[in-house]
Amino acid sequence: MSVTAFVESLHEFLQKDQISENETVREQHSVDESYHKGSITQVVVFPRSTEETSQILAAASKHVIPVVPFGLGTSLEGHVVPMQECVTIDFTEMNAVLEVSPDDLIVKVQPGVTRSQLNKELKKHGLFFSVDPGADATLGGMAATNASGTTSVRYGIMRDQVRDLEVVLASGEVIHTGSKAAKSSAGLHLNGLFVGSEGILGCITELTLKVYGIPEYEMAGRATFPSVENAVQAVVSLLQSGIPIARVELLDEISLKQLNHHQKTDYPEIPTLFMEFHGNEAGLAQDVDFMKEIVSMYDCEAIEFVTNNAERNRLWEARHNLAYSFIHGYPGRKMMVTDVCVPISELAGAVRHAQEQLSELNLIGGVTGHVGDGNFHVILMIDLADEEEKARANTFNESLVAYGLERNGTSTGEHGVGYGKQKYMEQEFGAALGVMQQIKAALDPQGILNPGKLLPAKGENVYESVIKS
Amino acid sequence: MSVTAFVESLHEFLQKDQISENETVREQHSVDESYHKGSITQVVVFPRSTEETSQILAAASKHVIPVVPFGLGTSLEGHVVPMQECVTIDFTEMNAVLEVSPDDLIVKVQPGVTRSQLNKELKKHGLFFSVDPGADATLGGMAATNASGTTSVRYGIMRDQVRDLEVVLASGEVIHTGSKAAKSSAGLHLNGLFVGSEGILGCITELTLKVYGIPEYEMAGRATFPSVENAVQAVVSLLQSGIPIARVELLDEISLKQLNHHQKTDYPEIPTLFMEFHGNEAGLAQDVDFMKEIVSMYDCEAIEFVTNNAERNRLWEARHNLAYSFIHGYPGRKMMVTDVCVPISELAGAVRHAQEQLSELNLIGGVTGHVGDGNFHVILMIDLADEEEKARANTFNESLVAYGLERNGTSTGEHGVGYGKQKYMEQEFGAALGVMQQIKAALDPQGILNPGKLLPAKGENVYESVIKS
Repeated sequence: MSVTAFVESLHEFLQKDQISENETVREQHSVDESYHKGSITQVVVFPRSTEETSQILAAASKHVIPVVPFGLGTSLEGHVVPMQECVTIDFTEMNAVLEVSPDDLIVKVQPGVTRSQLNKELKKHGLFFSVDPGADATLGGMAATNASGTTSVRYGIMRDQVRDLEVVLASGEVIHTGSKAAKSSAGLHLNGLFVGSEGILGCITELTLKVYGIPEYEMAGRATFPSVENAVQAVVSLLQSGIPIARVELLDEISLKQLNHHQKTDYPEIPTLFMEFHGNEAGLAQDVDFMKEIVSMYDCEAIEFVTNNAERNRLWEARHNLAYSFIHGYPGRKMMVTDVCVPISELAGAVRHAQEQLSELNLIGGVTGHVGDGNFHVILMIDLADEEEKARANTFNESLVAYGLERNGTSTGEHGVGYGKQKYMEQEFGAALGVMQQIKAALDPQGILNPGKLLPAKGENVYESVIKS
Repeated sequence: MSVTAFVESLHEFLQKDQISENETVREQHSVDESYHKGSITQVVVFPRSTEETSQILAAASKHVIPVVPFGLGTSLEGHVVPMQECVTIDFTEMNAVLEVSPDDLIVKVQPGVTRSQLNKELKKHGLFFSVDPGADATLGGMAATNASGTTSVRYGIMRDQVRDLEVVLASGEVIHTGSKAAKSSAGLHLNGLFVGSEGILGCITELTLKVYGIPEYEMAGRATFPSVENAVQAVVSLLQSGIPIARVELLDEISLKQLNHHQKTDYPEIPTLFMEFHGNEAGLAQDVDFMKEIVSMYDCEAIEFVTNNAERNRLWEARHNLAYSFIHGYPGRKMMVTDVCVPISELAGAVRHAQEQLSELNLIGGVTGHVGDGNFHVILMIDLADEEEKARANTFNESLVAYGLERNGTSTGEHGVGYGKQKYMEQEFGAALGVMQQIKAALDPQGILNPGKLLPAKGENVYESVIKS
């Protein structure tokens, strides 16, 4: 392994401006939005084609240089943070929308296209892309981490939208994992395997994705409840009723307080559901009546609907700005966001547990959740200079994940594993972790693809459980 | 490899009545509903628990005996047909519904539970399981082949319903592929990998599946069109409009003729869509107006709706009996059903191509399709004693698959690969087939799991392309 020889070989097929050893560029490409820290990448490359990506991987394979793929660095568990000397591949120059097929309701894009860039293009055709993780991430990154968000309760997660990926393997070989067909029972399901594989099996160079017609009618609303339990139980009933919920977000007392303070809103500071429904006007009018009946059974204190776009956008903007409300509210502290997903029948208990732990461990934080999926986040604001507080935050995280796993949930509903959650993989998967490691070993025998992420190396399942700073 | 020693070892942990070497039993377990023929299994075992299944696999592994998992033998591409000496594991004695969780909208079942058995149980809770492949298959078999059917356009395919599988690996080791959480970004996506793996990676011993609330209101309808092109284009527009189509099936002239003749129905014998919509009454009333507007743009000749259950059931019963109408209409001939899925923009052309080829090759058959997914079947009625006719049927199949693959479709939308479609895997997947073979080799190094199915063995990609009889 010689980085110098590797970088020299890059010059054989890349232009000068596609290779950067500049310290600032390297540092910018060695962090994400999480609190995880690692080492600094040796070199950043900017491929403009699949062929160039293939050449980079082939060279990395030859010189045994670790490879970290990079979109816009919005990951939340250290996915793009180098754990050793490596090359970082920045895909933002591969950012073309290659094909929009309204008849097939699919689109073909390069990995550096962002969510908002795609939606701007799709709007011309009356279409939209459904996955909204909050950040304006690249679609390559969203596929690599199996992103999801507020609309997943209706339209599904990133994995549900992927028809085909073009992937460059460790060797430089290029494969396609699927087709343009809406469904298939042919072969092993490589689409599903590569989505969420966090760069440890290959680099995504093209995506064919499912898109949707913009709904005829959209309606948003807010419902307040005396307790988190009541709010969650109301959502369970709404889901069972078949009412077409497009989004349903829970905000707890502390989150609403933070929101009101920093967004100048005046929401009641009690457990609240932010909701959205897609359908036609007559159908939604009937649903509203039914909904009011359902939520009243769970002592809903007030329910209000808005149908005009400006009001609807204001509601979701407030929700999306929740994290920033915390960040701006606590200068000098760093956000540490957890992400557990439990069976929905366990959600109220899990949220209550989180609130109790926050109070017991004397931590600053609020709970918010995609309750339709049983997925929730706790936004903690941590003083990274305070070792003792960091230890308490770590205890909190451990306790929350353990609570979720004991109830047959998962350690991460949407943020992914990256560096931060590898230590929980053995507890979550048991013997199945061995199967994952076998697949990794078969497809990346030298272990050059994003090492130190997603899967603990064989025989190395117990990671130190401290927050690096 | 000694079958005798293997069978002897089975007696160490199974009861006598769980092991059958009876010739009739063996023969019954060596065929499916397809025209594919192989050899006769050596022994059939009937495990009653995961532990027994694990012991069977461990013994098979030790004695290097091929293993074929078996549900009710309703597969359509020879999935359960032995290709060499083997043990067949019949899972029908593992047929308990283990858990129904209405709050979580999930159910846990053993692999031998059938679709109708599950729905009978779920009805008590106001719930239903969505995947309907026609046959009353076992859920283990449906997961193994990634089944789908008429309702997939709304609720998704089998893979979309699986939250967790308990799987016994070749070694006898037991793993869980997921959790009860509605979504997860942890680990590699083993759920998706094992669904549709046709028994070549492991045997499914338990399934946790997503279920749905029975819709408030269901409405079915029929619309007739002057051509297949017009019918398909109308479906594209309906999909883009966001109208909640729960089923949309195309029947061609010949299929309707066959149906009328054998079901005593009097449907017009022109291209027809059978449709179903789920929602609330007011919403569907508004959708009907919109729908009429849309289909009229494609020269719809007549559109009729039924809302009472009896009439609705009659419509879908007719559709489900289509295959039997062909079978009963041609005694002495064997049904050979193809199954291609293309991007929907290519569907009209593909159906036209199929109709032309049927006529050119002088074959008896009709076209029917899940047009919302771009998936269609051609039901051929073949005289298996006529070698020349079999060759023409084979030419037809090859031509149809080639047409689909050239247009970025898939060789099978729902029936799976089994024995019958292995020969197309290299053409469909190219270099990605190598990745699938590497995964298979890593997880089943002795190659004992359902050999000769799904993936052509390495270096053996060109299969004889004849119909065995």
